[in-house]
Amino acid sequence: MLLALPSSAMAETGQAGANVTQFVLDNGMEVVVIPDHRAPIVTHMVWYKVGSADEPAGKSGIAHFFEHLMFKGTAKHKAGEFGARIAEIGGHENAFTSYDYTAYFQTVTPDALETMMSFEADRMRNLILTDAVIGPERDVILEERRSRVEGSPQALLEEEVQATLFQNHPYRIPIIGWMHEMEKLNRAEAVEFYDRYYAPNNAVLVVAGDVEPDTVRSMAERTYGKVARGPDLPPRIRPSEPEQNTRRSVTLTDRRVTVPSFSRSWVVPSYHRATPGEAEALDLLSEILGGGTRSRLYQALVVKAGIAAGAGAYYEGTTLDDTSFTVYGAPRGANGLEAVEKAVDAEIARIIRDGVTETELEKAKNRFVRSTIFARDDQSSMANIYGSTLATGGTVEEVQQWPDKIRAVTAAEIKAVAVKYLNPDVSVSGYLLPAQDSRPEASEIPPEMIKPETGKADEPGPIEAAPTGAGAAN
Amino acid sequence: MLLALPSSAMAETGQAGANVTQFVLDNGMEVVVIPDHRAPIVTHMVWYKVGSADEPAGKSGIAHFFEHLMFKGTAKHKAGEFGARIAEIGGHENAFTSYDYTAYFQTVTPDALETMMSFEADRMRNLILTDAVIGPERDVILEERRSRVEGSPQALLEEEVQATLFQNHPYRIPIIGWMHEMEKLNRAEAVEFYDRYYAPNNAVLVVAGDVEPDTVRSMAERTYGKVARGPDLPPRIRPSEPEQNTRRSVTLTDRRVTVPSFSRSWVVPSYHRATPGEAEALDLLSEILGGGTRSRLYQALVVKAGIAAGAGAYYEGTTLDDTSFTVYGAPRGANGLEAVEKAVDAEIARIIRDGVTETELEKAKNRFVRSTIFARDDQSSMANIYGSTLATGGTVEEVQQWPDKIRAVTAAEIKAVAVKYLNPDVSVSGYLLPAQDSRPEASEIPPEMIKPETGKADEPGPIEAAPTGAGAAN
Repeated sequence: MLLALPSSAMAETGQAGANVTQFVLDNGMEVVVIPDHRAPIVTHMVWYKVGSADEPAGKSGIAHFFEHLMFKGTAKHKAGEFGARIAEIGGHENAFTSYDYTAYFQTVTPDALETMMSFEADRMRNLILTDAVIGPERDVILEERRSRVEGSPQALLEEEVQATLFQNHPYRIPIIGWMHEMEKLNRAEAVEFYDRYYAPNNAVLVVAGDVEPDTVRSMAERTYGKVARGPDLPPRIRPSEPEQNTRRSVTLTDRRVTVPSFSRSWVVPSYHRATPGEAEALDLLSEILGGGTRSRLYQALVVKAGIAAGAGAYYEGTTLDDTSFTVYGAPRGANGLEAVEKAVDAEIARIIRDGVTETELEKAKNRFVRSTIFARDDQSSMANIYGSTLATGGTVEEVQQWPDKIRAVTAAEIKAVAVKYLNPDVSVSGYLLPAQDSRPEASEIPPEMIKPETGKADEPGPIEAAPTGAGAAN
Repeated sequence: MLLALPSSAMAETGQAGANVTQFVLDNGMEVVVIPDHRAPIVTHMVWYKVGSADEPAGKSGIAHFFEHLMFKGTAKHKAGEFGARIAEIGGHENAFTSYDYTAYFQTVTPDALETMMSFEADRMRNLILTDAVIGPERDVILEERRSRVEGSPQALLEEEVQATLFQNHPYRIPIIGWMHEMEKLNRAEAVEFYDRYYAPNNAVLVVAGDVEPDTVRSMAERTYGKVARGPDLPPRIRPSEPEQNTRRSVTLTDRRVTVPSFSRSWVVPSYHRATPGEAEALDLLSEILGGGTRSRLYQALVVKAGIAAGAGAYYEGTTLDDTSFTVYGAPRGANGLEAVEKAVDAEIARIIRDGVTETELEKAKNRFVRSTIFARDDQSSMANIYGSTLATGGTVEEVQQWPDKIRAVTAAEIKAVAVKYLNPDVSVSGYLLPAQDSRPEASEIPPEMIKPETGKADEPGPIEAAPTGAGAAN
């Protein structure tokens, strides 16, 4: 599964992104070119500034549904033809839907770039959306939900935790959609969605790889440049959260659960909504508190006390609107969930009371930046960083200045965001519990809780497409 | 404060409502006339089919805000003139906003009825909405929220319980609005709301009292009949709740709280959404379980065990969409909240397991109907029943058939709805707790929990207007 990279991955751009070129086509389509000549490969991505949080009320899932429909036929190309061409030349492709954007990409050799653009520009406007196309694909997304959500107690819990955390903002609604609304999605709604959001002036083209900006510009003008502007869309202003006054909990008890686990979340600002420095401080706070095996939570609960099988924290800073900060833990062996929860709370209380040390902060900054080495070396990661930033109202400059801003965060700022945001009396906790007759075995660990290395357990990530057209690569 | 009557009050119509006359004006305004010649008094109500659940996303509070604005001036009548006229003739007036409707009424002598209609028809379309009118009135609703919600831990808790119970439907949003959204309500939005919803074809006129239908029809044609139709509005289809899989809780700890209390709620169908008989069964279930001092909860917890200061249940069946069923309790003296909660759960479990007896059901039906004697004798209650029913898609026939439908409910049907809806693993609990340094005194009882006679503790009722125009009666 392809996940959009966390903001920490943006660290790479201090190095590789220095010579990024940016321009706008006459029809309003933004273009970003990131030269990378290490290999004869090019990553071609189109990002639409529409995600699940932009869906009309009661039509949840339509953004993701539309991502599927983009793999259907146009007047010019039958369904599957695009994918078959990519497979033929040894490339690969995929797509994903998030709260704030929907993106499509292919990785191919540079000589195939214009062909990709041509196909992509074609399906931007020329899809044939008949009931015969809509019906079977709706069955596919329903089956996808059954398998990914209904089939997973953890996923079911996360959905309701998210809807309990966000009570006014559309991030409360799952990206894949609520089942009862997905079942009713129809052709008229799909066409309306397409006509409103799929247009060059609502899209960002990102090309990274072994090409020159001028070449990309000419190709883009010959392909995307021919597509007419769409409607001018209003600013993406969504309802925001009211002040929270309560401590909330959401508990799922299920026979399929073998070991209990818990999470505790808070609504916090994203990079796009934060006052200067706060998002960077939240990123480093999550790293120090729960980012991987060197973090306080992992060291205290897993290594020293040995009471937890896993514990960590994550902050999803790359959303357009206010987002969440989460801590989590799962007991090891016979240790109770309550002991783990108390120990997690104690670590948070310690940071709120004493802050973090300079040495600790320095190490975290280094670790934080080092952890992005993989991303830095990866062409599609670079394309992802620029695409997701531009698709959520950010700029190339913000991407480039990000490493310096991370380096500028002080220990006092870390303590300040912990004090300001991690208030246990105003939080939302999720509890995943085994049913009475399936008490945990001493050695069992739920697979979804064992990801201490990444510090990312279960945050809602974008949904990858499962294109059903013949020849579509996965 | 004026509350729309619970559905139980509908019992009265079996007697008094037999000769109700109903017709529609040429411009689409529905009219209901309920003759009542016991006294030379007439109740004049206009119900608009718009409430807080119809508000645009992010504009919460605008329905209630508009109710306030209706007391401002028109080209023909200065602000306060309408109210002054009513006061002069010894009448009274008020207004209220609910999730599903907004209503305005006056009670006057029959000779003043046409004047009332004339004023009411005038403000239906001719309000002067300048910034000078909007600004100060917005301050009034903000102050109203501060006093009613921010000033009450119970109200703050209820808001977040409601938003945790309804995660997709707009009933999750408070009728009065979220503070941060109310602060931004402006003239353009008010005008748009007015033009969309305030029109004869979106209104129901109810006249109850010492008048004849033909007289009302002539008067209505001369006043409301002159108002042009508004836009044709689409059906009121709102997002509905996804399947709930979790047990949720919302806890507010506050220094102002002296005795803890709790509630437990479930999403259940309203009369308008239920399959035949289910809503009636839910009404009787709430009566048997927790409607007043003869109910199981009151008898078991308050009278026999003596552990609770109050305990009860209520079902708010009159909404347009799915609604809630709630049980609640508060400890007496040194008894813990946990003991009260367990005892409430035990009573629910007992009904789920054993159902109710025939004798008990018969008594409840009688009690249920008897409890509406006050309503039956009250002219404005009759007007309320017809108005709220018609404003939420119901019919005069439904009102008239209701007592027979209540009488037809069987004990098996009561047990069936308890089994189907009152599942503790899929519920939302609210806990109101004293802060650590304000533990309850043995004799203190929170005033909001002492209403066992009505069986109604804290359900969200419509918000009454606090008109600020000079001379507006309260």
